[in-house]
Amino acid sequence: MLFKMLRRLRHFTYNILQNDDHDTFFSRCVDYFLIFLIMTNVAAVIAESVDHWYYGHKDYFEYFENFSIAVFSIEYLLRLWSVAEAKPDNTTWRQRWQWLKSPSALIDLVAIAPAFLNFFVNIDLRFLRILRLFRILKLTRYFVSLRILLVVISKERGSFQAVIFILLIMIVTASSGIYLVENHAQPQVFESIPKAMWWAVVTLTTVGYGDVTPITTAGKILGALITVLGVGLAALPAGILATGLANELAQRRDELEQQFRESLVDGDFDLVQNQKMIDKIRRELGLDKEQAQDIVLQVLREQELERREREVRKKNFCPHCGESLE
Amino acid sequence: MLFKMLRRLRHFTYNILQNDDHDTFFSRCVDYFLIFLIMTNVAAVIAESVDHWYYGHKDYFEYFENFSIAVFSIEYLLRLWSVAEAKPDNTTWRQRWQWLKSPSALIDLVAIAPAFLNFFVNIDLRFLRILRLFRILKLTRYFVSLRILLVVISKERGSFQAVIFILLIMIVTASSGIYLVENHAQPQVFESIPKAMWWAVVTLTTVGYGDVTPITTAGKILGALITVLGVGLAALPAGILATGLANELAQRRDELEQQFRESLVDGDFDLVQNQKMIDKIRRELGLDKEQAQDIVLQVLREQELERREREVRKKNFCPHCGESLE
Amino acid sequence: MLFKMLRRLRHFTYNILQNDDHDTFFSRCVDYFLIFLIMTNVAAVIAESVDHWYYGHKDYFEYFENFSIAVFSIEYLLRLWSVAEAKPDNTTWRQRWQWLKSPSALIDLVAIAPAFLNFFVNIDLRFLRILRLFRILKLTRYFVSLRILLVVISKERGSFQAVIFILLIMIVTASSGIYLVENHAQPQVFESIPKAMWWAVVTLTTVGYGDVTPITTAGKILGALITVLGVGLAALPAGILATGLANELAQRRDELEQQFRESLVDGDFDLVQNQKMIDKIRRELGLDKEQAQDIVLQVLREQELERREREVRKKNFCPHCGESLE
Amino acid sequence: MLFKMLRRLRHFTYNILQNDDHDTFFSRCVDYFLIFLIMTNVAAVIAESVDHWYYGHKDYFEYFENFSIAVFSIEYLLRLWSVAEAKPDNTTWRQRWQWLKSPSALIDLVAIAPAFLNFFVNIDLRFLRILRLFRILKLTRYFVSLRILLVVISKERGSFQAVIFILLIMIVTASSGIYLVENHAQPQVFESIPKAMWWAVVTLTTVGYGDVTPITTAGKILGALITVLGVGLAALPAGILATGLANELAQRRDELEQQFRESLVDGDFDLVQNQKMIDKIRRELGLDKEQAQDIVLQVLREQELERREREVRKKNFCPHCGESLE
Repeated sequence: MLFKMLRRLRHFTYNILQNDDHDTFFSRCVDYFLIFLIMTNVAAVIAESVDHWYYGHKDYFEYFENFSIAVFSIEYLLRLWSVAEAKPDNTTWRQRWQWLKSPSALIDLVAIAPAFLNFFVNIDLRFLRILRLFRILKLTRYFVSLRILLVVISKERGSFQAVIFILLIMIVTASSGIYLVENHAQPQVFESIPKAMWWAVVTLTTVGYGDVTPITTAGKILGALITVLGVGLAALPAGILATGLANELAQRRDELEQQFRESLVDGDFDLVQNQKMIDKIRRELGLDKEQAQDIVLQVLREQELERREREVRKKNFCPHCGESLE
Repeated sequence: MLFKMLRRLRHFTYNILQNDDHDTFFSRCVDYFLIFLIMTNVAAVIAESVDHWYYGHKDYFEYFENFSIAVFSIEYLLRLWSVAEAKPDNTTWRQRWQWLKSPSALIDLVAIAPAFLNFFVNIDLRFLRILRLFRILKLTRYFVSLRILLVVISKERGSFQAVIFILLIMIVTASSGIYLVENHAQPQVFESIPKAMWWAVVTLTTVGYGDVTPITTAGKILGALITVLGVGLAALPAGILATGLANELAQRRDELEQQFRESLVDGDFDLVQNQKMIDKIRRELGLDKEQAQDIVLQVLREQELERREREVRKKNFCPHCGESLE
Repeated sequence: MLFKMLRRLRHFTYNILQNDDHDTFFSRCVDYFLIFLIMTNVAAVIAESVDHWYYGHKDYFEYFENFSIAVFSIEYLLRLWSVAEAKPDNTTWRQRWQWLKSPSALIDLVAIAPAFLNFFVNIDLRFLRILRLFRILKLTRYFVSLRILLVVISKERGSFQAVIFILLIMIVTASSGIYLVENHAQPQVFESIPKAMWWAVVTLTTVGYGDVTPITTAGKILGALITVLGVGLAALPAGILATGLANELAQRRDELEQQFRESLVDGDFDLVQNQKMIDKIRRELGLDKEQAQDIVLQVLREQELERREREVRKKNFCPHCGESLE
Repeated sequence: MLFKMLRRLRHFTYNILQNDDHDTFFSRCVDYFLIFLIMTNVAAVIAESVDHWYYGHKDYFEYFENFSIAVFSIEYLLRLWSVAEAKPDNTTWRQRWQWLKSPSALIDLVAIAPAFLNFFVNIDLRFLRILRLFRILKLTRYFVSLRILLVVISKERGSFQAVIFILLIMIVTASSGIYLVENHAQPQVFESIPKAMWWAVVTLTTVGYGDVTPITTAGKILGALITVLGVGLAALPAGILATGLANELAQRRDELEQQFRESLVDGDFDLVQNQKMIDKIRRELGLDKEQAQDIVLQVLREQELERREREVRKKNFCPHCGESLE
């Protein structure tokens, strides 16, 4: 009896915390509460760094921190406990172990671990505070577009590798060159290649603080060349990400379109039933409702156009043998 | 009789002010006059901030402001009155209420409201002047490409959300990191995380004023890392917008193409009649004439090519049975 | 007799100077000589601004300038004279008048006009020199990729309009806002909105000289907001141009492909003859040889694949009636 | 006997050093060792520029340099010797000569040449050190995505030409303009056009050090105009590269897809055999395994969908005569 109640409770907890398909008012409230708590935590870390705020309300900050750790710890344990409901046929502990190794579980752990570690080891207080900023990563769970962006980054890692490699070559070349030509004029600033690298990074990324600039003519010519090349490279990762993002979304739309076409071919076209299926795929792919609806209408419209074109062609050519009627 | 004249006047006003399909010399003159008035208003606000211009011609500025408010108020009332002509079958006041809630009507209201508010409440004069700058938003009505850009921004809001979220994470992380490593060397500049955020924003967006720069080696290494990552993110929204804009225009061209194809299938191909239909769709989609013409010619050309390919295939294979003639 | 010789000379001049299809060793030499002369002219203008170079070799600079004007004037007159050969059936003077109004002829005129104007009016010498820089525009004639870029810019003018409009709104808003909040702290720098605009432009374009920066907290918050928004807009024109360029080139490739397909349908496929036609279209579209060859091979390959797929289908289904053989 | 062993050794060396298809544990170890050595070489060059590091461990740096030269020389000779195995039917020395002229062989030569040159000529030590940085180029051999990027750059050279040309025009125009208006106010900084070019480059690339800024009103207006135009151009090469990279990868995927389709048409579909072929093409095109698998599955799925659509159509229309059954 108690066991049955526990299982029901576990299923309920799973639905609230982990099941994306379960979308009730209560589960949303829990989500919004956690998002709000994460954000106030980040705000608190920032506020604590201002001395007169921190020393004025030290107690409140500590109460809030303790409350946050409690909530995040309970959330972590509840997730660990309820994740066994995900695939009821797998063994309980194997699923838990798999969840523990998942990126989102590791982020949850990192969010609470430093606070507990502090009981055993003595960590520098200021450093500990900054570690609490990792809690911001817990937000990734709630933003589907952020997950898509991460997928794109991982898919385009080959291009990024190439860009970072070229950037490194350019930084090394630029700093060595400027070191050669400016070393005599500004021995302090361009004392060595590692020191010249600060100038190279600031210039190639077009930040240009102006704290270090070439003053010799040779240095300025070299600097101009490097700047022109650098400006062509600086925006490249952003460009790769932008086109990658567009392609990823186009691919997901194509995937939805194809699945819908496949379901249409099966003949038993039932709009209500299809709507459910489309909704399921849509959620998996992270598309919003409007986009999915557009795609479905587009497919239906194209098929109608095709059907009509075939009929017109049939009118002009005899349907029995294909002979032209003209 | 008077009522009939009033209705005719209302219809005339509606055509001049609201009906995009109505394109006469007079309606264009009204448009250009309003555009000119909006722009001179903005110029006036800017000029008033220069003391020796303002105190030298105080009266002229005030006359111009009063004239502008009068014109914009009359425009607002005429629009409210004549909008009832939009859909003659709807009740008059419901349509007016709907128009009042539309974004363009709200912009019109914001453009004149502060001036009237000033009669009742005493607002700081300088602040009031700046509010008049909102009149620039009235220009959105006249630029179709601007509306398309706004549509793209609203469609890509998911991606922007993700980018802004990542940017926030990076700003918080960067400012916390630099606060940790530079706080001892520059206690004034990096006094707290909120103060360090100014450096983080200026660096991540590659503006790089140079008023705040890291001076320790650790700070420079951290700064270099953040800059390289930041430069990859800074141009991302622009990239997303650019590809989004290209996709949006491509979609609109496809939409026009498909509607034209559908009208062709119906058999009764009549170029003059089609031209009208194409023009109507074109205007709705915000494409220019040249683009629409290109699409129409392309469709006709492709259909001709298809027809000829079918005929050639018929020549090589018997049209009666499909058997090869070779 | 003399008339015949003159006509032959005119035709020869036309081929050398104006006919892109005429590609001999001599016509190339003339092109390279003119390109070299334009570039050395620009270099001379730059060099003349350095006082000790100019006063050291004043005579040489003047000799070179006189020589250049002579060459460019003769070139202009020869072009005007020989352009009558372009379309032999048109009247001579109408063609010349049309050429005079063409952009490239206007550029040629601007390149020599100031020097002749100097005989009649007394222009400031330094300003006159700078005007000679317009000669650099004569280079546009020789770079096909530059012409494509100009076509893209003119096609995307709607998007640029929208971007510049938004940029103007942002500059006006940003400078008004910073004027409000920083005017008291830095009355010199943010004395009026026009003065604050310098800061707004430098910030929104992410240049960030650092000569003008906000110092109040409110100013820094406003500055951070504007910077984050600005960085999203700054790279937008570049993004629009890049995608526009890619689309333009893709369109030209499609155009070439379609023309090649159309010539294939006509049945009398003759590779040598087609090669000529492809080369002609290729040159008109500004594609290079490699790209054109790739497209032709791709079309032939796709048609071969289609043919084979049709044959395989014929094997599986009876070609006489379409009945399945399985 | 010895000759046979030598040939076997040469073949073994060829497989280890040159054959990309030969992928064993030992060949990978050799690759990783060489990559590691190149990177430590670059690190050493950078470290040597720091005086107290260099003079503290002068001997170690020299030992390491000698060891590196030895390894790279042996590698170069082994490659030259074993390359004869590439195409066994060609003559040995012709292949070696062809390899010597290849870009990757030239990079290998440049990496070791300065060190040997030093025996004969007396080169400035510091300059010699910097030349060793070219060893970083040896890494291109090991990164496929870098090679793809270089292919894209060479394909888009037309666009880059146009961009650099426009950039040059803008730099010349901007520096001439600012020289005209700022020369009187800041005769030191804007002494001549070449000096003003430093400002133009720093501004147009949006680096904006702030060491040189316009101070007159005319200069600021000109600066603002140039900045707004410049910001539209600065990110253009990056945008072109990003879209070019996306197109190049899409083209390679299409190429793989078409080759797979062609192999499918041949009828004898054998997944295992196809897998080998796909793997070979995949490696040549520089795609990763995941992408290739996705493409293959997509093609199979589309063909299945097409087959089913044909069958459904056959159900609705009599397959014997094409007459509708309704």
